[in-house]
Amino acid sequence: MNRDYSHRLIVQEVAPRDGLQIEPTWVQTNDKIALIDNLSACGFTRIEAGSFVSPKAIPALRDGDEVFNRIGRRPGVIYVALIPNAKGAERALAAHADELNLVMSASQTHNRANMRMSCEASLAGFGDIVRLVKGTTVRLNATVATAFGCPFEGRIDEARVLDIVDTYREMGMQGITLADTTGMANPRQVERLVSRVLERVSADALTLHFHNTRGLGLANVLAAYDAGARRFDAALGGLGGCPFAPGASGNICTEDLVNLCDEMSIPNGIDLPKLIDLSRALPALVGHDVPGQLAKAGRNCDLHAAPDYVRTI
Amino acid sequence: MNRDYSHRLIVQEVAPRDGLQIEPTWVQTNDKIALIDNLSACGFTRIEAGSFVSPKAIPALRDGDEVFNRIGRRPGVIYVALIPNAKGAERALAAHADELNLVMSASQTHNRANMRMSCEASLAGFGDIVRLVKGTTVRLNATVATAFGCPFEGRIDEARVLDIVDTYREMGMQGITLADTTGMANPRQVERLVSRVLERVSADALTLHFHNTRGLGLANVLAAYDAGARRFDAALGGLGGCPFAPGASGNICTEDLVNLCDEMSIPNGIDLPKLIDLSRALPALVGHDVPGQLAKAGRNCDLHAAPDYVRTI
Repeated sequence: MNRDYSHRLIVQEVAPRDGLQIEPTWVQTNDKIALIDNLSACGFTRIEAGSFVSPKAIPALRDGDEVFNRIGRRPGVIYVALIPNAKGAERALAAHADELNLVMSASQTHNRANMRMSCEASLAGFGDIVRLVKGTTVRLNATVATAFGCPFEGRIDEARVLDIVDTYREMGMQGITLADTTGMANPRQVERLVSRVLERVSADALTLHFHNTRGLGLANVLAAYDAGARRFDAALGGLGGCPFAPGASGNICTEDLVNLCDEMSIPNGIDLPKLIDLSRALPALVGHDVPGQLAKAGRNCDLHAAPDYVRTI
Repeated sequence: MNRDYSHRLIVQEVAPRDGLQIEPTWVQTNDKIALIDNLSACGFTRIEAGSFVSPKAIPALRDGDEVFNRIGRRPGVIYVALIPNAKGAERALAAHADELNLVMSASQTHNRANMRMSCEASLAGFGDIVRLVKGTTVRLNATVATAFGCPFEGRIDEARVLDIVDTYREMGMQGITLADTTGMANPRQVERLVSRVLERVSADALTLHFHNTRGLGLANVLAAYDAGARRFDAALGGLGGCPFAPGASGNICTEDLVNLCDEMSIPNGIDLPKLIDLSRALPALVGHDVPGQLAKAGRNCDLHAAPDYVRTI
């Protein structure tokens, strides 16, 4: 089998939003801004920098307005904000977010648990946001959460996911994300679903969002890439996680993904040594070890000195 | 791309040997025996049950003789012993090991660091062992360690690995293992090297041994399987690890691998719920958390109850 690894893989860094949102320790606004600015310097073209959610719902990200207003905007970098409703969209527009990311679950139960509304109510709210951004340069991305499985309902019908993708496109969403919210996807399923979605959406408008909950995150990335996907969410250090799987890993880890690309000669444009330095500073920022592995193990090219006794053998 | 997932994937469980060998806490002989007997009941056809190494070099496995003599031998299960030299082979034969696994690194520096001898001395020792088992029913497997990279020397020439494979075959080794000893392999490299080795060795004689040091273990399994490999080492809980990458993950985790197979409908013959129970008992046995993820997250089919408020939305 001769696969083509020449296409650029675009990593959207989501640690400042999806990574930090469940952290119990408050990360200072200045530290968030420094993190985002440092990420901008690593070569990312897309960074999910914060959310405009109710401060009661997600206190860890209550400073989204200040973060978006004070980060150093690097030309060519799209700064994305997660938005739950029209009120959040108004705040995001005021704070000059470049792109709004809207989320609805394919699973009704998960949408009710996560967004506290039905899927129908979510879609109605998306309509309000579409009207709000009309005439601006702000882009819209819509996420299908639990696209590969729901922790409450189990398997999700592919037809249901494809229907939502069609609905999103009809509403005028420029980008679509398929999210494996609690890490239930497997590579065989990913290859099949991505192939079908790419019949409807161009590769430059499709993002895959994998969690590493059951250790399959990077295998799923490769399956999606083989099927033609090019854009992937990942979080520095593998931050994030799922409240339903304590101790399990969160988002796929950015530096582990970039290392995979570098080792396989998949172009990605990210400065890996700089990224590793940032990741190694994370435990001090969030107050605990993080799941990413490359920052602990080092790159393959970071060779070790042989033990002294080797010379005498 | 339509891949074929109908071929059985054979998992060789290595936790009792590769997993326990670096554990600082002494695991009682009775507990080792119970672990192996419980693994036998999970459906494994191959278990690396211990080693016959100098008790000074690896004190954690100094009870190999007693372990092999007292485990319950289940028909159809091959109990493998790791052997460093002819003296170890004599002990293994006395303890009725079904198969001896010999190890030499493709990297001279790593072989000197790990085995404390040159590759030439290793091969000469293998010759002694071949003569020792001649006329018995005991099988020989030989491992190429650092086949995908060396933490001291870096990249390993594929031609060097293929030469060693040829040498092993000429010596009469029935089985060959390619080991990614410190987790440096990537799926592109794996697919290429496995394809070349399978031109020399039949799939039922080839084992792949991956570590998850940089998060690529299961992606490498799939790449090898796609290339035609069918046999894989894995350790319960992802036990094991590399002294050169503290904090990084060890062997690929058996239950994570079996879950991958089950989710992709790859036949494997292992009882996953039973395996998860065994894995969840590991932290009490070794005195620390283990890297495997499935035992923490649960299977996809282990659904969660939705929060109460969902009913009112």
